Amino acid sequence: MEQVETIGADLGGTKLAVGVVGGAPEAVWQEEVPSRGYSQEDVVNLLAQQINKAREAHPGATAAGVGVPATIDYETGLAIASNNLDIDGLPVRDLLSEKVGIPVAIDNDGNLAMLAEALYGAAKGADHALLLTLGTGIGGGIWLNGEIYRGATGAGAELGHIVVDIDGEPCPGSCPNRGCIESMASGTALGRLAREAAEKHPDSELGRRLAERGTVDAKDLDAAARGGDGVATEAIELAGHFLGQALVSLANIFQPQVIVLGGGAIAFGERLVGPARTEVERYALDPMNKTRVEIAKLGPAAGMIGAAAFGRMEAERD
Amino acid sequence: MEQVETIGADLGGTKLAVGVVGGAPEAVWQEEVPSRGYSQEDVVNLLAQQINKAREAHPGATAAGVGVPATIDYETGLAIASNNLDIDGLPVRDLLSEKVGIPVAIDNDGNLAMLAEALYGAAKGADHALLLTLGTGIGGGIWLNGEIYRGATGAGAELGHIVVDIDGEPCPGSCPNRGCIESMASGTALGRLAREAAEKHPDSELGRRLAERGTVDAKDLDAAARGGDGVATEAIELAGHFLGQALVSLANIFQPQVIVLGGGAIAFGERLVGPARTEVERYALDPMNKTRVEIAKLGPAAGMIGAAAFGRMEAERD
Repeated sequence: MEQVETIGADLGGTKLAVGVVGGAPEAVWQEEVPSRGYSQEDVVNLLAQQINKAREAHPGATAAGVGVPATIDYETGLAIASNNLDIDGLPVRDLLSEKVGIPVAIDNDGNLAMLAEALYGAAKGADHALLLTLGTGIGGGIWLNGEIYRGATGAGAELGHIVVDIDGEPCPGSCPNRGCIESMASGTALGRLAREAAEKHPDSELGRRLAERGTVDAKDLDAAARGGDGVATEAIELAGHFLGQALVSLANIFQPQVIVLGGGAIAFGERLVGPARTEVERYALDPMNKTRVEIAKLGPAAGMIGAAAFGRMEAERD
Repeated sequence: MEQVETIGADLGGTKLAVGVVGGAPEAVWQEEVPSRGYSQEDVVNLLAQQINKAREAHPGATAAGVGVPATIDYETGLAIASNNLDIDGLPVRDLLSEKVGIPVAIDNDGNLAMLAEALYGAAKGADHALLLTLGTGIGGGIWLNGEIYRGATGAGAELGHIVVDIDGEPCPGSCPNRGCIESMASGTALGRLAREAAEKHPDSELGRRLAERGTVDAKDLDAAARGGDGVATEAIELAGHFLGQALVSLANIFQPQVIVLGGGAIAFGERLVGPARTEVERYALDPMNKTRVEIAKLGPAAGMIGAAAFGRMEAERD
């Protein structure tokens, strides 16, 4: 499908990655630039500038796909609401298509990471799969009957906003709820769990790091756990337990063949994913307790690769 | 589709309803018999007996659909696990087809109620809808892109087993988890909430009923609320709040056009559904907060009508 070169853009809250993807899943050209703090107009200009740069490098690329961290209206290519970027209400697709002169398709970034993992990664060969990206927040993607599922108008698959603890912490950003899994197992939540554990156990490695530097984050948590700190390991396992309960709900709802976990927090590896997987094995109904729980294979490039695949699909559909 | 007469059977934990459906959604013949406590062999014989009775009454009915309260293996027509009936591991479809001599299709009862509501009821015209049946337990059905969605092997759509309270009550029956919505807003859970409220407020109408009779159930709760008892109303609203949080998760996941609520507990009407709907409006992400939450239209016959529609579809597919 993707022998034809296509441009993929993955717009995040802090950076924009644009690449040209040929014989997928490899990018033949790519560049990353900061995206934080851009106004609506500037973010579209930035996207256009980087897409044009990709086209100059690879003039054969005649279509583009863009992933954005926002709920999307699929028909109109409009960004509805985003936690991390000033793009709410912006008709990203049409503004961009006009500026770059080639067809541009936009979708939610979680959907596109799911597409990439289904085509080339940990969900390859599966007809039914889910993906959660554990980053600053938690994004999601749904793959059903061999296609991305987006809901009535393209805004669904917000898998980070599943309630797990009805009395839990307020969900950050634009989500009005509390106790969502995003507030309990995202990278941000792992940082909070690290601070709480460090305060509670000042004699632990994590506690010493807090005393030394006045703060600890998810990276300290990872380092302390790798160094054998039981307090750090326990904090990660707690997040894995929370995450696992969301996966139990998702397994019972979808009976997917595999649930793929991606995003920055996957640096915690099996320390985080192991307890989540155990939760599914123990607490999902039979036969959903056999759902595989796997770490994403494509790494940080998944969003860009999925965006390119999507851009090609949409261009060929028209 | 259903001008051809088809037999629909709705097997529950306490009764079996079998009907002949012609110009749906009306049954032209139907009969209900008790099903509680039957052995595996007897439950198949009971189904065969009632299907044969329907065929004698309407010899033109040459296919049947059966809904069972169990996870199902769609390819083999096997019942995997049921909370209320001794049919675990039973190849219901093949045993029955052999006994009655016409094609029989089986599916989960929640899926079939969803099918009926999508074809003729509260989800008519929707491409994306969900259904929860609030009875002894909570069953579910998923309608995506105009079709029933069943998961990888047909066992999915267990919408009652979504976790809402990670520290909640153990889920009844064969579910190994705790804090599932089934343990918080089913008919059984409403009975428990009634008892708790009555014990806490002995001076309320509900409390007086408890003192008089030593027990209160969901029916007392309904009667007391209708009589103006604020304690009873509050207990129902609490269940509606729990239920609403599960609906928020489902809205964020699926972005359905409508979520349909059916089953016996729907006798509580807007006292239960109103707070659940408000929860979705307030706590789901934009635009999922616009998901409609509606009461099922077909009443207790939905399962049988859906079973007949499914039996016809499967017979025509072969």
